[in-house]
Amino acid sequence: MTLEIPEVVINRLPVYARALAALAMDGETVVSSQTLGERLDVTPAQIRKDLSYFGRFGKQGRGYNVLGLLAKLREILGLDRKWQVALVGVGRLGQAIAEYGGFEPQGFQIVAVFDSDPAAVGTTVNEVVVRDSEELDTFLRQNPVDIGVVAVPAHAAQQVVDRLVNAGIRAILNYAPMMPHVPLDVAVRNIDPVLAMQSMTFYIKRQDLTGAK
Amino acid sequence: MTLEIPEVVINRLPVYARALAALAMDGETVVSSQTLGERLDVTPAQIRKDLSYFGRFGKQGRGYNVLGLLAKLREILGLDRKWQVALVGVGRLGQAIAEYGGFEPQGFQIVAVFDSDPAAVGTTVNEVVVRDSEELDTFLRQNPVDIGVVAVPAHAAQQVVDRLVNAGIRAILNYAPMMPHVPLDVAVRNIDPVLAMQSMTFYIKRQDLTGAK
Repeated sequence: MTLEIPEVVINRLPVYARALAALAMDGETVVSSQTLGERLDVTPAQIRKDLSYFGRFGKQGRGYNVLGLLAKLREILGLDRKWQVALVGVGRLGQAIAEYGGFEPQGFQIVAVFDSDPAAVGTTVNEVVVRDSEELDTFLRQNPVDIGVVAVPAHAAQQVVDRLVNAGIRAILNYAPMMPHVPLDVAVRNIDPVLAMQSMTFYIKRQDLTGAK
Repeated sequence: MTLEIPEVVINRLPVYARALAALAMDGETVVSSQTLGERLDVTPAQIRKDLSYFGRFGKQGRGYNVLGLLAKLREILGLDRKWQVALVGVGRLGQAIAEYGGFEPQGFQIVAVFDSDPAAVGTTVNEVVVRDSEELDTFLRQNPVDIGVVAVPAHAAQQVVDRLVNAGIRAILNYAPMMPHVPLDVAVRNIDPVLAMQSMTFYIKRQDLTGAK
């Protein structure tokens, strides 16, 4: 266990991996921490420090081997395999998530879908049959998945998270506008558009004040 | 202009503000950086350093005045006023965004909605009439809004972003699975569930390896 690696470092690794994949697509074979940093708005020193948690990459003054570092990051993050995902909630948001084109190419496959609405149960969403949420525990114990995605209303979300955790899931992506409580050994990420908006108003406000329109 | 404040610091301020609001709701009047840090998984030193960009808060050994710091953060971020939002794209995702309950209580009001589908134009989404995307430029120049939300397919997203920027918008929340290019004076935040998932697989993978199931 390498508990000493800060979560913020882990959160940056997928961003590095994505940038390296783009560089590889462009035919680049070597990249400096300077160039990588400029693409990502991260200081070169930060990139070098983040990567140093996982060993020695690149040679002084030579930069990183693009494909080599990409392969290593994919291995560290577990992106070199497939991950199975269960989605709970198939309202408009849940359906949009099920149809989101970004997951499958990155190895995330929605293999189970649940909803508590009798009208939704038995229908199919992106070729997966919607099961009754009542069956969630039983089904996931018999058919373990890696990640749970929560797309239910805020008032129902904590209960759904608890059930996913009880069914053995250790990673939860939460779209409900609330912060779920989870045990320490469960990873949770909240899709939080309000925080994203609130971090932008600082900049618009400043432009208003300085008259830079 | 206070350009020297790192963007990551700005991104943390709304999180602090939210935690302070929760503490105020619980009737707490004073909070230490230690306690605040424990709630947020941030070190007390980081909190003190982040806040130091904006002046002196709290007294040594006494902690922060909850309501006082909250009011100051809200002022810094511009959360003490209303912000007008334009939404582009009213497919399933766009409709889910329009109906998302988290925006309005935080001062973000969707006042204009656009779509290029003739079947959608003229319908209403959350009491706002859907306008033809062709009218976007003209309408937004006459009725300026603060923030643009992009909920169109990836292949159409850059064009929509360009049009929002040309219409004067300086803050964009992008839900499309791509990274839009914007001028330096435009803030953009990407809702990126894949990066969120990829930062969790590190932890599940590790648990698999160590047998901690």
